Amino acid sequence: MKAITEKTRISRSPKRGDYSEEMIYSILDEGLFCHVAYVENGQPMMIPTGYGRVGDKLYIHGSMGSHFMRAIADGRPVVLTVSLIDGLVLARSAFHHSVNYRSVVAFASGTVVTDDDERWEALRIITEHVVPGRWDDVRWPSASEMKKTMVISFPLDEASAKLRTVGVLDDEEDLNLPAWAGILPLRLMPGEPQPDPQLAEGTAMPGYVSGYKRGSR
Amino acid sequence: MKAITEKTRISRSPKRGDYSEEMIYSILDEGLFCHVAYVENGQPMMIPTGYGRVGDKLYIHGSMGSHFMRAIADGRPVVLTVSLIDGLVLARSAFHHSVNYRSVVAFASGTVVTDDDERWEALRIITEHVVPGRWDDVRWPSASEMKKTMVISFPLDEASAKLRTVGVLDDEEDLNLPAWAGILPLRLMPGEPQPDPQLAEGTAMPGYVSGYKRGSR
Repeated sequence: MKAITEKTRISRSPKRGDYSEEMIYSILDEGLFCHVAYVENGQPMMIPTGYGRVGDKLYIHGSMGSHFMRAIADGRPVVLTVSLIDGLVLARSAFHHSVNYRSVVAFASGTVVTDDDERWEALRIITEHVVPGRWDDVRWPSASEMKKTMVISFPLDEASAKLRTVGVLDDEEDLNLPAWAGILPLRLMPGEPQPDPQLAEGTAMPGYVSGYKRGSR
Repeated sequence: MKAITEKTRISRSPKRGDYSEEMIYSILDEGLFCHVAYVENGQPMMIPTGYGRVGDKLYIHGSMGSHFMRAIADGRPVVLTVSLIDGLVLARSAFHHSVNYRSVVAFASGTVVTDDDERWEALRIITEHVVPGRWDDVRWPSASEMKKTMVISFPLDEASAKLRTVGVLDDEEDLNLPAWAGILPLRLMPGEPQPDPQLAEGTAMPGYVSGYKRGSR
């Protein structure tokens, strides 16, 4: 269970808050990318980016030349959010329309990872986060590619989850209205894989591509 | 075409930038929710929330009691991001793995909408953004519901899109490696609609539910 802080306390609809590591980590593990916000000269800035998690650490990577990476490399406070949309809630009243979602907000300061082993491991974790099983099949980073890559780690100490998972919550007096009501589930689904036109003939499609899915549902 | 400003100029991979209203609005119209970041006592804060767009205005709504809505109601600078994941790019090298995406980042200051007609229209637009066709079928907001609801508008003057839409970009010398390479398309797809258990028998499911999809692809 994460400690609840002034920043992570869910003030709006507190019943939707969840501070358990189990929930927070399961949302982070299902998400594909996070949004990272930081402050530059008083101005909020935001970037969507990939990530990976191991234990209570979240890793992102980027180019050494990236303005964003260089900005947050100094350890300034950032906020990271991962949001999953699970369904649309269609109520009989406009007012009670909602969305079923699971989200995590984490407050942290980044640390540039300098240890070579941890940098390597972070890149493996980020790759495996996006496509589990992929790392062992690909050409690993060269010394020159490693040199171009910055890895930043964030502790997941100050994080909370917020989720809505229930059905339609209409007012009693609206239940007899003729409008259809219910949940329309939504999910990020894979389409037909598109092999690279230059793929050597006879290269088999791995099971982690043909059977790709996010989450355990 | 949006004017390019110091904040919206794409510095990393500038070829992926697109400042056309056509592209920016098509991404905003396909997205379901945005992430909004703002600054509170020097600390970056972020919230995912629904929205709607009409012309060069983006609307969000929330509870009058929401800490987030009350914070940004003062017109402080915010950044809004909408991100769509279109596919995973599996290269032969770990380094050239990527994601096909379309995203919009908009910088703006919010204005609390006070005109009753515009407030009503904003709620209609937000509802129709999520489920086109829905507004005419539901019980419209009561005076008391309107009173509880804050609507904030943002001008879309300072916005840019960034997208990656191409195939695998491996280094020439990696093309003969035995790894499978290609694009795994991803898309937010509807599942089987779940009618509310209290739905009156015989209530037909509207076509905008059974045939729901995001985007024009």
